[in-house]
Amino acid sequence: MSSNYRNFRNSVPWLIFFLEAVFIILFCFLYSDDGVSGSNISYPAFQDVSHMVIFGLGFFLAFLKRYKFSSTGFNLLLIVLGVQWSVLMEGLLFFLFQNEKEDDLKSITKATVSMTTVVISSAAVLGKANPIQLIVMTIVEIAAFHLSRWINKMYLKIGDSVGMMHVHLFGAYFGLAVSPFFSEPSPNSEKNASTPESDLLSMLGTLFLWVFWPSFNSVLAVEEEKNTIIYNTYFALAVSAVTAFALSVLTTKDGKLRMKHIHSATLAGGVTVGYAAHSIWYPSIAMILGLLASVITVLGSHHLQRCLNSVLKIHDASGIHFTFGLPGVLGAIAHVILFVVKNWTDLRSQRYLIMIEIGTFCLTISVALISGFITVSPFGCWILNGGTQITDLAKIRFFYLSL
Amino acid sequence: MSSNYRNFRNSVPWLIFFLEAVFIILFCFLYSDDGVSGSNISYPAFQDVSHMVIFGLGFFLAFLKRYKFSSTGFNLLLIVLGVQWSVLMEGLLFFLFQNEKEDDLKSITKATVSMTTVVISSAAVLGKANPIQLIVMTIVEIAAFHLSRWINKMYLKIGDSVGMMHVHLFGAYFGLAVSPFFSEPSPNSEKNASTPESDLLSMLGTLFLWVFWPSFNSVLAVEEEKNTIIYNTYFALAVSAVTAFALSVLTTKDGKLRMKHIHSATLAGGVTVGYAAHSIWYPSIAMILGLLASVITVLGSHHLQRCLNSVLKIHDASGIHFTFGLPGVLGAIAHVILFVVKNWTDLRSQRYLIMIEIGTFCLTISVALISGFITVSPFGCWILNGGTQITDLAKIRFFYLSL
Amino acid sequence: MSSNYRNFRNSVPWLIFFLEAVFIILFCFLYSDDGVSGSNISYPAFQDVSHMVIFGLGFFLAFLKRYKFSSTGFNLLLIVLGVQWSVLMEGLLFFLFQNEKEDDLKSITKATVSMTTVVISSAAVLGKANPIQLIVMTIVEIAAFHLSRWINKMYLKIGDSVGMMHVHLFGAYFGLAVSPFFSEPSPNSEKNASTPESDLLSMLGTLFLWVFWPSFNSVLAVEEEKNTIIYNTYFALAVSAVTAFALSVLTTKDGKLRMKHIHSATLAGGVTVGYAAHSIWYPSIAMILGLLASVITVLGSHHLQRCLNSVLKIHDASGIHFTFGLPGVLGAIAHVILFVVKNWTDLRSQRYLIMIEIGTFCLTISVALISGFITVSPFGCWILNGGTQITDLAKIRFFYLSL
Repeated sequence: MSSNYRNFRNSVPWLIFFLEAVFIILFCFLYSDDGVSGSNISYPAFQDVSHMVIFGLGFFLAFLKRYKFSSTGFNLLLIVLGVQWSVLMEGLLFFLFQNEKEDDLKSITKATVSMTTVVISSAAVLGKANPIQLIVMTIVEIAAFHLSRWINKMYLKIGDSVGMMHVHLFGAYFGLAVSPFFSEPSPNSEKNASTPESDLLSMLGTLFLWVFWPSFNSVLAVEEEKNTIIYNTYFALAVSAVTAFALSVLTTKDGKLRMKHIHSATLAGGVTVGYAAHSIWYPSIAMILGLLASVITVLGSHHLQRCLNSVLKIHDASGIHFTFGLPGVLGAIAHVILFVVKNWTDLRSQRYLIMIEIGTFCLTISVALISGFITVSPFGCWILNGGTQITDLAKIRFFYLSL
Repeated sequence: MSSNYRNFRNSVPWLIFFLEAVFIILFCFLYSDDGVSGSNISYPAFQDVSHMVIFGLGFFLAFLKRYKFSSTGFNLLLIVLGVQWSVLMEGLLFFLFQNEKEDDLKSITKATVSMTTVVISSAAVLGKANPIQLIVMTIVEIAAFHLSRWINKMYLKIGDSVGMMHVHLFGAYFGLAVSPFFSEPSPNSEKNASTPESDLLSMLGTLFLWVFWPSFNSVLAVEEEKNTIIYNTYFALAVSAVTAFALSVLTTKDGKLRMKHIHSATLAGGVTVGYAAHSIWYPSIAMILGLLASVITVLGSHHLQRCLNSVLKIHDASGIHFTFGLPGVLGAIAHVILFVVKNWTDLRSQRYLIMIEIGTFCLTISVALISGFITVSPFGCWILNGGTQITDLAKIRFFYLSL
Repeated sequence: MSSNYRNFRNSVPWLIFFLEAVFIILFCFLYSDDGVSGSNISYPAFQDVSHMVIFGLGFFLAFLKRYKFSSTGFNLLLIVLGVQWSVLMEGLLFFLFQNEKEDDLKSITKATVSMTTVVISSAAVLGKANPIQLIVMTIVEIAAFHLSRWINKMYLKIGDSVGMMHVHLFGAYFGLAVSPFFSEPSPNSEKNASTPESDLLSMLGTLFLWVFWPSFNSVLAVEEEKNTIIYNTYFALAVSAVTAFALSVLTTKDGKLRMKHIHSATLAGGVTVGYAAHSIWYPSIAMILGLLASVITVLGSHHLQRCLNSVLKIHDASGIHFTFGLPGVLGAIAHVILFVVKNWTDLRSQRYLIMIEIGTFCLTISVALISGFITVSPFGCWILNGGTQITDLAKIRFFYLSL
C-alpha cells in the first residue's frame, strides 16, 4: 500500500507535465497571432467571468473543514488546465468543421464559461475523488461538453450565447452521474464536517457569485440584449436571495437560518433566468422565476435529497442537483413557455422551433448523463485509475490535503 | 415570553414574503421592457457600486464579534429588499409627476446608491435593532430619502448627480435620530465586543470602500466630469488615509494605532469631496479637504463622542456621525465656499444660487432627522413592532445571530 | 532606551505630516485642472491595477504570522504616500524637461504601477525594517526608479509602456541591495513564523495577483496591442500555475505541496512576459516562457537561496529574487532573443537596437543596485535613521505590530 501511495503521489506531477506538454504542442499547430486585435467581448466582462470562476466557485467549494482554502488552490489548477484544453477543443472543432476563427479574448472567455461545468461536477464528488480522478474528469467532461454544444450548434442551430448557458445543467447532471461511483463518507466522519470558518469562506463565495452573475449571463450575448439580461438577472437574483432567507427560517423547526439553504437558494434565480433572460419582457416575470427557483431549491434540499440519497445511492456532497440542476430545468421549461406565450397567435408555424428548444435541452442532459456514466464505467475507471482499483484509491489520503 | 419569541421568529419570513409579493405586483404595473437598450451608465461602473455596497459596507459592519459574517448576509437581505423598493419608489415618482423614464441600468444604479443611506443608518443601531425593525426601517428610510430628493429636484432644481451624494448626510442623521430609542448595551457586554478576526473583516471592508470610492462619487456624473471627480476623490482619499494613520498614533496615549480611527478616518475624505469633486479645480484643494475631514473624524470620535453619548443619550454603535455625518457637513460647507470663491467678482447675482445650495443641504438633514424621529415615535413604534412593546423586542435575541 | 523608543513613536506621525505638507504644497504649484477630461486609460483598467497593488500585494505580504492583516494596513499607507510622491516626480520631470502633460488618470495609473517596485522591495525586508525606514525607502526608491526610467526614456528612447514593466526587476534588485544591512532574525524566532491563517491570506493575495496580472501588463500599452498582451499573459500565467503545482510536489521529499512554491512560481510567468507580451506572435511561446519562469523560480528557491543566504549574507524574507528578480531577467533575455529571431534576415542593421535593448535592462538593474546601496550606506543610514544607529532601531518593536 505504501509503495502504491508513493506511486500515486509521484504520478500526479508527471500527468500534469504530460498534459501541459501536449497542450503546448497542440497550441503550436493550431494558434498563431493572426493580427485580429479587436474583440466583441470587453476585457472587464472577461475579468468578471474569470473572478466568478476563480474566487466565487473557489470559495463556494470551500465549505468542507478539511479542504477550506486548499480547495481554492486546487480549483485554480483545474481551471487553468481546463481553460487550455477548452481553448484547444474549440480550435480543433473550428479546424475540422469551419473556417471562421474567433478572436483571442472571446476564446478564453468561452473556455472560462465552459469550466463552470467542471467546477460544478467536482462539487458533487468533493472530498471523495482524488486529484488524478479530478484532472481526468476535467479532460473528459470538457470534451463531452464541447461535443454536446457542437451537436446543438450543427444540427439544432442553437447559437453560442444560448448554448453556453447550458453549463449549469450539463455540470449538474454529469456530476450526478459520476457521484454514485464514489463511496460516501460516513455521516459523522471529518470529511463531511464544516467549521464556522469554512462556512464563512463559503458564504463569501456565494456573495461573489451573486454579484458577478449578471456578468456571467450577459457576457456572450449580443450588445443590444446585454442590458435587458443584466436587468432581468439582477431582479431574479434579488428575489431569490429574499426568498432564500425567508424560506430557510420557515422550513427549519427551530426557526434558525441554515447556511446551506442561503448558500444554494440565493443563486438559484440566476441559473433559472440564464436561458431566457434576453426574452423576458417584464422584470416581474424574472422576479417570479427567481421566487420559484428559490422555492424549488430549498424544498428540494429539504425533502428530495433524502430520497435520492437512499434510493439512487447518490451522495451529492454540495447539493448541486438543487443549486444548479433543478433551477436549470425550471429555466429551460420557462424558456419554452415564454416562447409559446409570445407566439400564441401563430403557434402552428412555430411548432418546429418549440420542438428544437425542447430537443436541445434534452440533448444536453442526455450527453451529460451518458458521458458521466462512461467516465465511471469499468472501462472509464481503468483509464481513470491507471489500472488500480477505484476502491483502493478512494482510501488514499488526497495529496491536496497536505497543502 | 417564549410564545412571543416564537411569534416573532415566524413573523419575519411572512413579513418578507408580503413585501416581496407587493413588490412583484407593483413591478407588473410599473415596468415593462420598453425596448430601451442603451444606457449612459456603463456596466463596470454599476458593478463597482454594487461591490462597494455589498462587500465594502457588508464587511465594514462586521466589526462586532457576535455578528461578524452574519451581518454581511443580513446586509445582503436588506440591500436586495431596499433596491427593489427604491426602484419602485423612483418608478412611482416618475409615474406621478413626470413622463420621461430612465433606462434599466441607471435605475438599479441609483437604487444601489440610495441603499447606502440605509446601511449607514443601520450601522448606528447595529447590535440593538432586531431584523423586523431593520426591515421596516429600510422601507421607511428609502421612502423618506426619495421624498427629500424629490423636493430637492422639484423645488430647488438640484440634479440627480449632486442630490444622490446626499446619501451619507441623510443616512448619518437618520441613524442618529433613530438611535436614542434603542437601549444601549452595557459597556462590558458581549454585544459591544470585537475580536481580532472581526476587526480584520472590518479592515477588509474599509479597504474595499477605499478602493471603490472614486467609482461611487463618479457613477452618476456626466461623462466629461468623471475623470476630474475620480482624480480629486483619489487624492482626497489618499491624504485622508495618511492623516488617519498619523493622527491615530498621536491622539492615543500609548502611541498605538486604534483600528477604530483607521476604520473611519481613512474614508472621511471620500465623503467630503462627494458633493464638490466636479467643481474642484486644483487637486491640492481636494487634498486639503481630505486632511480636514480626517482630522475632524479622529478628533470627533476622540472627544465629541463622549459628550454626545452622555448628554443626548445617543449610542452611535459604529461612530457613523464622525465617519459620514461631520465629513458630509464639511463637504457641503466646502461646496458653498468653493462656489463663492469661484464667483467672487459676480457674487451679487449669484446670491440666489448660494442660498439654494445651503437650502438643499439643510433640507436633507431636516428630512432625515424628522423622518427618523417619526419612525421611532410612539406611532412609528406601533407599526415598527406590530403592536408589541419595543422594550420587549429589544431583549429578544436576534434571529440572525443564529446564522 | 525607553525615551528613545518614545521619540521614535512620536516621530513617525510628524514625519508623515511633514511629507504630506510638502506634497500638498508641491501639488499647488505643479497641478491644476487643465480642462483635459479624456484619457487613453480606461477607468476599469486603472481600478484593476489599483486592486492588484492594494489587495494583491497587500495580502501577498501577509504571510508572516506577526504581521498578517496589519501589513495590509501599512501597505495602504506606503502606497498612498508613494503614489502622491510618484505623481509629483512625474510632474517635476515633465516640468523640467518637457512641455507635454499627461492626463489625470494616466498619471495616477503610472504612479500606482511604479509603487509595485516599493512593495516588492519592502517584501525583502519584511519584519526587519521599521516604519520610518520603510517610509524613507519609499521616497528614495520612487525617486531612483523615476531617474532610471527617465534615463531610459531620454537617452535610449524606451517608451513608457516598456519602461514601466521594469518595475519588477528594479524592485527586486533594490530590495536585494538593501536587505544585507538589516540583521536576519534567528531561524526559529517568531518573526519568521507563519500560521495557516496567514498562509491563507497570502494564498488569497496570490489569487488576486494572478487574476489581475493581464490587466497590469496591458494597462499602459496602446489599444491595438492590448488584446495580444492579455492573451499571452493569460497563457503564460496558466502554464506557470500548472508547473508550480507539479514541480512543488516533485522537489519536496515527502511529496507534499509547499505553499511557498505555489505562492511565488504561480506568478513567475506574468513577470516574464511583461516586457515581451506585445511582440509574442504564438501563444505557445508565451506558454514556454511561463514554464521556464516557473521552473527557475521553484529550483531557485529550492537550491540557490541557501547559497545566497550564507555567502552574500542576504536574507530575502519573501524570496523576491526568485519571484520577481530572476523571472524578470528571463523576460529581458527572451525579449532580446525574440527580437533577434524576428529580424534574423536583417540582423546587421538591427544591431544597434539590440544593444539598446540589452543596455536598458542592464541600466535598470545597475541603478536599482546602486541606489539600494546608497540608501543603506553610512550616509544613507544617517538620513534613514535621523541620526540614531541602525542597529538600535532594528531592535525596536515596530509600531505597526501594535495594530
